[in-house]
Amino acid sequence: MDLYKVKDPSFLKEMSSSQLEELAKDVSKFLIENLSTTGGHLGANLGVVELTLALHKVFKSPDDRFLFDVGHQSYIHKILTGRAGQFDTLRKYQGLCGFPKRNESEHDIWETGHSSTSLSAAMGMAIARDLKNEDHSIVPIIGDGALTGGMALEALNHIGHEKKNVTVILNDNEMSIAKNVGALHGALGRMRSAGKYNRAKDDLEWLLKKIPAVGGKLAQAAERLKDSMKYFVVPGMFFEELGFTYYGPVDGHDFNDLFENLNYAKKTNGPVIVHVMTQKGKGYHPAESDKKDKWHGVGPYKIESGEKIKPVDAPPAWSSVISETLRKEARKDKRIVAITPAMILGSKLEKFGEEFPDRLFDVGIAEQHATTVSAGLATQGMKPFLAIYSTFLQRGYDQVIHDVARQNLNVVFGIDRAGLVGADGETHQGVFDIAFLRSVPNMIISMPKDENEAQHLVHTAMTYDDGPFAVRYPRGNGKGISMDEELDSLPIGSWEVIEEGSDGVILTFGTTIDMALQASKQMKQEGKSIRVVNARFLKPMDEAMLHDIMKEQLPILTIEEAVLSGGFGSSVLEFAEEHNYTLQYMKRMGIPDRFIEHGSVPELWEEIGLTTESVIQNLKEMIPDKQQRA
Amino acid sequence: MDLYKVKDPSFLKEMSSSQLEELAKDVSKFLIENLSTTGGHLGANLGVVELTLALHKVFKSPDDRFLFDVGHQSYIHKILTGRAGQFDTLRKYQGLCGFPKRNESEHDIWETGHSSTSLSAAMGMAIARDLKNEDHSIVPIIGDGALTGGMALEALNHIGHEKKNVTVILNDNEMSIAKNVGALHGALGRMRSAGKYNRAKDDLEWLLKKIPAVGGKLAQAAERLKDSMKYFVVPGMFFEELGFTYYGPVDGHDFNDLFENLNYAKKTNGPVIVHVMTQKGKGYHPAESDKKDKWHGVGPYKIESGEKIKPVDAPPAWSSVISETLRKEARKDKRIVAITPAMILGSKLEKFGEEFPDRLFDVGIAEQHATTVSAGLATQGMKPFLAIYSTFLQRGYDQVIHDVARQNLNVVFGIDRAGLVGADGETHQGVFDIAFLRSVPNMIISMPKDENEAQHLVHTAMTYDDGPFAVRYPRGNGKGISMDEELDSLPIGSWEVIEEGSDGVILTFGTTIDMALQASKQMKQEGKSIRVVNARFLKPMDEAMLHDIMKEQLPILTIEEAVLSGGFGSSVLEFAEEHNYTLQYMKRMGIPDRFIEHGSVPELWEEIGLTTESVIQNLKEMIPDKQQRA
Repeated sequence: MDLYKVKDPSFLKEMSSSQLEELAKDVSKFLIENLSTTGGHLGANLGVVELTLALHKVFKSPDDRFLFDVGHQSYIHKILTGRAGQFDTLRKYQGLCGFPKRNESEHDIWETGHSSTSLSAAMGMAIARDLKNEDHSIVPIIGDGALTGGMALEALNHIGHEKKNVTVILNDNEMSIAKNVGALHGALGRMRSAGKYNRAKDDLEWLLKKIPAVGGKLAQAAERLKDSMKYFVVPGMFFEELGFTYYGPVDGHDFNDLFENLNYAKKTNGPVIVHVMTQKGKGYHPAESDKKDKWHGVGPYKIESGEKIKPVDAPPAWSSVISETLRKEARKDKRIVAITPAMILGSKLEKFGEEFPDRLFDVGIAEQHATTVSAGLATQGMKPFLAIYSTFLQRGYDQVIHDVARQNLNVVFGIDRAGLVGADGETHQGVFDIAFLRSVPNMIISMPKDENEAQHLVHTAMTYDDGPFAVRYPRGNGKGISMDEELDSLPIGSWEVIEEGSDGVILTFGTTIDMALQASKQMKQEGKSIRVVNARFLKPMDEAMLHDIMKEQLPILTIEEAVLSGGFGSSVLEFAEEHNYTLQYMKRMGIPDRFIEHGSVPELWEEIGLTTESVIQNLKEMIPDKQQRA
Repeated sequence: MDLYKVKDPSFLKEMSSSQLEELAKDVSKFLIENLSTTGGHLGANLGVVELTLALHKVFKSPDDRFLFDVGHQSYIHKILTGRAGQFDTLRKYQGLCGFPKRNESEHDIWETGHSSTSLSAAMGMAIARDLKNEDHSIVPIIGDGALTGGMALEALNHIGHEKKNVTVILNDNEMSIAKNVGALHGALGRMRSAGKYNRAKDDLEWLLKKIPAVGGKLAQAAERLKDSMKYFVVPGMFFEELGFTYYGPVDGHDFNDLFENLNYAKKTNGPVIVHVMTQKGKGYHPAESDKKDKWHGVGPYKIESGEKIKPVDAPPAWSSVISETLRKEARKDKRIVAITPAMILGSKLEKFGEEFPDRLFDVGIAEQHATTVSAGLATQGMKPFLAIYSTFLQRGYDQVIHDVARQNLNVVFGIDRAGLVGADGETHQGVFDIAFLRSVPNMIISMPKDENEAQHLVHTAMTYDDGPFAVRYPRGNGKGISMDEELDSLPIGSWEVIEEGSDGVILTFGTTIDMALQASKQMKQEGKSIRVVNARFLKPMDEAMLHDIMKEQLPILTIEEAVLSGGFGSSVLEFAEEHNYTLQYMKRMGIPDRFIEHGSVPELWEEIGLTTESVIQNLKEMIPDKQQRA
């Protein structure tokens, strides 16, 4: 079937199961081919080809509302709603978003990216539907991993209580991004093997039918037992306890099983959960046979061999540098424990886990819990390292304030994917953390200029003993520079002049140091000498250096790959105000007050004016010719 | 017994149940008497007198770790650990904290205030204990209300998975602060009436014993059924499914029942949950018979009659003004729905709920879910009003960014208890919200100067249709001013000059306007004319007015009852930088970079220098004598 001609999913209504099976093959082929050049969430989508087709056949989008939790598994939904032609631009600048996007299609009614939001949104939609006396289905599709996120459980509790018609599709592939954890996972396992439960229930029913013939006291007990059949364990007891009707387990690759259960679910009053078993990477051998994450999300690859097309000899990833340093530190300090919310692979903690299996804890998608577990560890004299993406730390914000910083506990935050993240786009940009952490008392916030400084900063953090310490680092690879053998502690709050200059100063850190150095170099050719400072501590700042700069009355340019509102540049303004400096020439560069969509980081830098050219432009405006200035 | 002589809880070990019953009476009497003058969480503590005594008898603090979730029920623990003598200073400035506090006692090992953190902290402590090969119990005490918070469920999931020895005490009084909600509450109810389950199980066992005599196929089925007995529903199935051993329900006012179950729990390997039934307000008739919240937390009262000692003719509470305005708006606009995370009473939403029972949703202690339910409602054209305390909005921060602001949805945030909250202290100060919301794109943030402006602002927010809108308002009562009949929309971003002046300008909002006016008045006597601006929109600001002020080169003083880092004053600094104004005289007043403990708001203002005197002092420093300046 020519998927490029599909405008909407209505054609599915007329299709038979065998026709759908053919279509499913076409869709899988389409995904395998297209993603081989663009990259994307191949494994996650191959697992839900039949499920998505079945949902679009049984329900009627957009009247019925599909909410894709996390949302990276919405590619088939995008194909069925007329977007096959845009897949060559998938996750590229101004191209098709890798997540549901309301401005792409009326079929995308809820935007996702972070996990576990779909049930709450569905509940909001259900309340609205009922108040407006409308009649349609609301169908959140959520993975077993996302279900462990606290807000998903809060939502189950509320939906079950209000008894709203919400049809939850539990897409259970026994892994979120990687192997799943949590006791709930165990409960799901028991549901999967529902045979034993059902057999026991059948046995009891059969037994009770025989009883009346026996008579007397036995018969009375049997009667009471019949009344009590509802107390017998059913698969999905966990959900039934929360007020949901449970259907499952359903074979997510069998159309007949899917149709039967989805149709039942559609007709059922009150909250329903349909437990669908799927296989991630289904239909593409290299993905199916991958033991790590079933090709959850990948870059370009060769279709036949499954060989990944990677840049040759890339320097080590920032995450690797950090986790390897942590591993070294952990050899020397038994108090070190690593915590991750379902990101062992993303945060490159596999080797740490191999060497210290009892000192690495994957808590599942549970950032609030991850933060406070770390706080609990710190109260007992341990040195927890919480590896967490900047964008996901937003989930643990109250815990950072209330549990960690307020008690001034020694928790080290390894803030991964800080700054713009590229293809994942606006839901994942790690651009708020400086603004939201800077106002929290007791926090130390730092960012290294390269991977060598990164290891010294991690060492500094792990040996610091007076409160919380954040080391933020970007997505992607380091610079491939040589690494010192011995690790040193950097003085807290110390900055470093990496280029001398007397006409003006750039205060910057992390990823934007290079453009500052470039700009300084070019300005030198025009006779202007620009100092470049590696402001590796965002809080506390290097006050002695700031006093010197401000006393010199040097023009100051701050550059940060983070939001300008309340960011690092603002803290420099605050410092000037606190100490009564009048800044004649001060300019802040950074991310403006709007959400930044997907694209490569250089493209996004260009879009928001974070470029060497803009730096030069700003410097020229700030630094008048010397004769004028004097 | 003389409670003032108690130094530590070791004396309990020798006490018999009947002696403990006498002691319990003494403790209750102590609480009723002391709290009659200080106020405090009387109802919550009267419910756990026997439970706390029993815990301190069975376990050995501080070797065994008690973690009081939320923590306002820790008064008996404080009495038993030598702090009875400080109860006359309870919740007062520099007095005994109303929550566990590590600097008060070695028995307070985990500080709380916000709910649902104790299980995560306990898990961190359990990991630490096991890595250090120590042997002690870890005993979080959590209410049924706090259990619905997402992070508590994340923690249950993780503890159950790791099978750690953690002894959870579920203090089930069938209400959190007020009547409880949520499907989990229903599940707890079924556990409470465990009799039926047990009867059914007994019946089956009895039946199966009779079977062998029958023989044949029946006997085979019976054999299989015996193997399947474990599949039979037990009370606490919800917890058992998560990997916990369940004990209960236990009568929380019966020492023998408590001892039996706590001793079992102490010996049990792996995670345990002890389900204890308690009665809030137990032993004090006025509290017991109160239907609203059983005197959860109260101000001073007359012991005999239970009559509350209240200031005569206090103006209406801010929360009332807001919720009454919302009620008026809701009469005109059917799209309006109110959402609260377990704060119907605190946010004064009872009357709204009486008039619009199907348009008020109490989602339980679940701030993440509350925020995203609101977002879901907004996608369907509804106008959700989320009433949430500033300090608890920290829990929904990611949802504000990712679900509400990023999709630019029309959610109105009624941010209650903004600013310093007084007696609840540092866990509850609402001082971060400006800093953490200001950097979020699309947000409008406002604060009224009085209750009349409050109603206009609520009207403005409820009729605004281009994204999220926050109206923040303080704890306590308004000013008692007269209210306009007709409601107007205030122009977004508009400020108001409430006192003219030409020598300097104070930009402030909300609670600090009065001290600005006072200062302006006193400065006038010294010949200085100070303009006072009601900067009721924190974002966006009144740019036209700011341009005028900065072009005039007026000295600017900003005052805010919120953190200075990244706060309102910083946004004024940012504005100056963006528009290339050089500020010769600019000063920010607000809350310094540390946590502020409990005390009355005026005492706290004094402590941090937020007083009329300081305002005058700053103005004098900023505004040189006219001859000097010219």
